[in-house]
Amino acid sequence: MKAKYIADFDSWKKGFAFSVPIQVRFSETDMFGHVNNTVPITYFEFARIEFMKELGIMQNWLMGESKLFPVVADIQVDYTQQVYFDEKLKVHVKIESIGTSSMDVHYWVTNGKGETCFTGRGAMVQISKETGKGHPWTEQEKELFRNSGAAAAKL
Amino acid sequence: MKAKYIADFDSWKKGFAFSVPIQVRFSETDMFGHVNNTVPITYFEFARIEFMKELGIMQNWLMGESKLFPVVADIQVDYTQQVYFDEKLKVHVKIESIGTSSMDVHYWVTNGKGETCFTGRGAMVQISKETGKGHPWTEQEKELFRNSGAAAAKL
Amino acid sequence: MKAKYIADFDSWKKGFAFSVPIQVRFSETDMFGHVNNTVPITYFEFARIEFMKELGIMQNWLMGESKLFPVVADIQVDYTQQVYFDEKLKVHVKIESIGTSSMDVHYWVTNGKGETCFTGRGAMVQISKETGKGHPWTEQEKELFRNSGAAAAKL
Amino acid sequence: MKAKYIADFDSWKKGFAFSVPIQVRFSETDMFGHVNNTVPITYFEFARIEFMKELGIMQNWLMGESKLFPVVADIQVDYTQQVYFDEKLKVHVKIESIGTSSMDVHYWVTNGKGETCFTGRGAMVQISKETGKGHPWTEQEKELFRNSGAAAAKL
Repeated sequence: MKAKYIADFDSWKKGFAFSVPIQVRFSETDMFGHVNNTVPITYFEFARIEFMKELGIMQNWLMGESKLFPVVADIQVDYTQQVYFDEKLKVHVKIESIGTSSMDVHYWVTNGKGETCFTGRGAMVQISKETGKGHPWTEQEKELFRNSGAAAAKL
Repeated sequence: MKAKYIADFDSWKKGFAFSVPIQVRFSETDMFGHVNNTVPITYFEFARIEFMKELGIMQNWLMGESKLFPVVADIQVDYTQQVYFDEKLKVHVKIESIGTSSMDVHYWVTNGKGETCFTGRGAMVQISKETGKGHPWTEQEKELFRNSGAAAAKL
Repeated sequence: MKAKYIADFDSWKKGFAFSVPIQVRFSETDMFGHVNNTVPITYFEFARIEFMKELGIMQNWLMGESKLFPVVADIQVDYTQQVYFDEKLKVHVKIESIGTSSMDVHYWVTNGKGETCFTGRGAMVQISKETGKGHPWTEQEKELFRNSGAAAAKL
Repeated sequence: MKAKYIADFDSWKKGFAFSVPIQVRFSETDMFGHVNNTVPITYFEFARIEFMKELGIMQNWLMGESKLFPVVADIQVDYTQQVYFDEKLKVHVKIESIGTSSMDVHYWVTNGKGETCFTGRGAMVQISKETGKGHPWTEQEKELFRNSGAAAAKL
């Protein structure tokens, strides 16, 4: 059951160069015994922001005087495998493509055995507080985003 | 910015016959001042389950001795408009299509002015605890699901 | 098992004049099958803010230019009875006592049978953004808070 | 502003021998810009369970055939200092005292500078699924709990 946003699973996986560890909290389970379906999206957010910090762009958005901030335009989660309390997961993130003021971010969550638990994607847009509309990336930022992918490709 | 799962927005909206009210909680906002992007999926879950209760199928899954339970296979959220603390929303749900042991559920969230805030969709699968695989709907259940749509179409 | 902040349970209960309904969400349960212990405090927050809105004081704190905002100084939750998915609860709130810039807020959560599920209390302080310290209530506000109790006592 | 459950802060702090790291997630902030007051209790739960795993007792409760499970009887949180997005916290846990079938667990949360952000406590009771009542600790378990404190005292 492959998601439409994954053309070839093997080459898709190779594109990920960044990941963060997540340990499933008890409060994230539900009465069916597994991680509730509303939880992986919080893992995605945590991993995406760690990635943006790594790239050095999150810091700008968080400054009090910043006129720009990121907004999630859409998100998709595919639940490939049930996940249980206390599992130690890895949440991989990559920028799949870059638009004028947006980017398509992909997610791949694996468990301790390296099995795929969740996959996902979502567009993120940089918004201007003044206009309320998308604010274009600089050429420098686009270069940075492209390199974040190139770094992975080299591995 | 229309999601791919919506062919024609006007006729798509007309298909919704069921909705639940949701009031945005303070703890659901984040430091950017709006509802955090991880929250609407909890609204979807709440509305979907209320709908399944209305159809009378949720009760079976919740019985201790039940050998079947529902699993969310994938979910998509499109964030059309920012939502703020204390807004009173309506979460509309419908069954868009029915598979052998699955269904495609669609979501439409509107604010007090009737504006679209979020749209979404996701496949739900009825799983057998014994086999760990999809368990087919009965003909009676399929009829029930189809009528839940027919009811809306008549409005 | 009575909490220390309740001198006499019967007279304590009579002090509540305001309540909000809450329906337990599926995502609020955990793998032990009941509402997770981290959840009632979100009910408390929801009810407290609805109460502050009713009193007309929440609105001031939420205005962009407001120099004052409320902070929770401490909170206590006593879990009297297990609560399960889909229960319809009532969250009662009252102001137990008023300090210079603080108030002691009490909580009482009942289920459909009127049984006590949770009780709680917590101090809330009105903070000044400029000084970072408590900002005194006006006499008018204190009067308002006292009347919110008087209203209950009359019932 | 010292909580009543702390007789002497310096000696209280010395009792903690176990801690877990927690990084504040973006989704845990609220529109006032800091960590929402409903969040620290989820940190407490995470740390408490890690501690119970370390002691080797959590494993028993999680086994499918287990006739015993832990329940949180009450919880208290004192918010000493505001905490913001991305802070790296340490959540310290200790068993303060041991009852027949219960224990009093204390919590101390510090930030990167070693400053106190939150303190807390709560009783946990071991419940029997059969009777629905407290099930006594074995002498071996009590010894284990006492030693978890002794280990700290030696540091």
